[in-house]
Amino acid sequence: MDRTKALASSWEANAGNWTRAVRERLIPSRDAGTDDAILAAISTHSPRRLLDVGCGEGWLCRQSVQTLGCEATGIDGSSQLIADAQCADPNGRYEVITYQELMDGGVSFEAPFDVIVFNYALFDEDAPSLLAAIRPHLSAMGVVIIQTLHPWSLEQGQDYRDGWRNEDFSAFENQNWTAMPWYFRTLSSWHQVVRTAGLALLKLEEPMASFNGQPLSLLLTCECHEGDPD
Amino acid sequence: MDRTKALASSWEANAGNWTRAVRERLIPSRDAGTDDAILAAISTHSPRRLLDVGCGEGWLCRQSVQTLGCEATGIDGSSQLIADAQCADPNGRYEVITYQELMDGGVSFEAPFDVIVFNYALFDEDAPSLLAAIRPHLSAMGVVIIQTLHPWSLEQGQDYRDGWRNEDFSAFENQNWTAMPWYFRTLSSWHQVVRTAGLALLKLEEPMASFNGQPLSLLLTCECHEGDPD
Repeated sequence: MDRTKALASSWEANAGNWTRAVRERLIPSRDAGTDDAILAAISTHSPRRLLDVGCGEGWLCRQSVQTLGCEATGIDGSSQLIADAQCADPNGRYEVITYQELMDGGVSFEAPFDVIVFNYALFDEDAPSLLAAIRPHLSAMGVVIIQTLHPWSLEQGQDYRDGWRNEDFSAFENQNWTAMPWYFRTLSSWHQVVRTAGLALLKLEEPMASFNGQPLSLLLTCECHEGDPD
Repeated sequence: MDRTKALASSWEANAGNWTRAVRERLIPSRDAGTDDAILAAISTHSPRRLLDVGCGEGWLCRQSVQTLGCEATGIDGSSQLIADAQCADPNGRYEVITYQELMDGGVSFEAPFDVIVFNYALFDEDAPSLLAAIRPHLSAMGVVIIQTLHPWSLEQGQDYRDGWRNEDFSAFENQNWTAMPWYFRTLSSWHQVVRTAGLALLKLEEPMASFNGQPLSLLLTCECHEGDPD
């Protein structure tokens, strides 16, 4: 099985664990600041309509509707995660759509979105194609917001270069997880992804952990680029 | 004396040491890749006219003229460094111009520049004002290229946040150096500097050291931004 498929199927296999980890707040970085950071980044753009790509069990859709009063649509490739999202939010709009379906171009939405967000949901090697496929669903002044691992979250001694890595979820006490391949990108590579997708970097933020003065994540807000991509 | 003035006068005090350090190749990172990286970044834009701001003893002007065949103008606030540059390159165009003079707006040049470069020469806190002051001297498709310390060149345990630091040149055997205050910026801050100056990030590069697989520098290529700065 190639890594892209293994990545997608790891989410299906880990759906139950993941929903529990989010809802029981077992992921320290979220409380340390990454949850607040993504909500603040979205809030800056006062969206009427939000698309949450790789929404998982739906917390960001629920939070955005509650705190920002916008309409939110959540999509995810895992039917179990979408079922969990719908169960927690029966009136919410959730749909099983895979990244491959998005890239194949057959997906349509009722209207364009003011914010399209990928919150720790852009782990595949071919991120530019996915971003380029999502770009036509942006409203005229719409933005794409990406939160992801900060590139210097590398373990000591690892080479600083693009490549597949493996998340084994060993930080969780429950060992019943399926390993997830994910594609590490340098900072330079993230910038190139954005430009290749026909976007331009409007804002680059580094939400900070107060406990150690180090960045928790990389948070990119991207607008459509008028000229040709590089 | 405030830090901006101390920064400027440290270059005057260190001029002799600096010229020797560059010409005797005493700075390992330059051979490891930062010299080649800045020349390659300039070369991408095939400039007819180059402005090297904070040119020091002039190596980048000399190299650009020799290898790229462009016209080069070097400016620096240190009269000693400009004298050293002129001495090594009697036909070259060098001029003593301080950053304050650039920001005050009274400086004029014969014609606009296709590339304006700051190679380890943007160490002051008010970098946006300097960049904004230099922007009108760009040609229509001109770019500003900045090479600087990679933000994760922090020493262990230092907080990752903007602020003045002190370079004591202790890596050099010769101890006859005057300490130089310089303003450390996070990645997020660098991006904000670029946007505040009315520029947009065209390319973000991280020249790599082959010996340890870690980035040597941060290399930003910026174009004029059509819209309003953030």
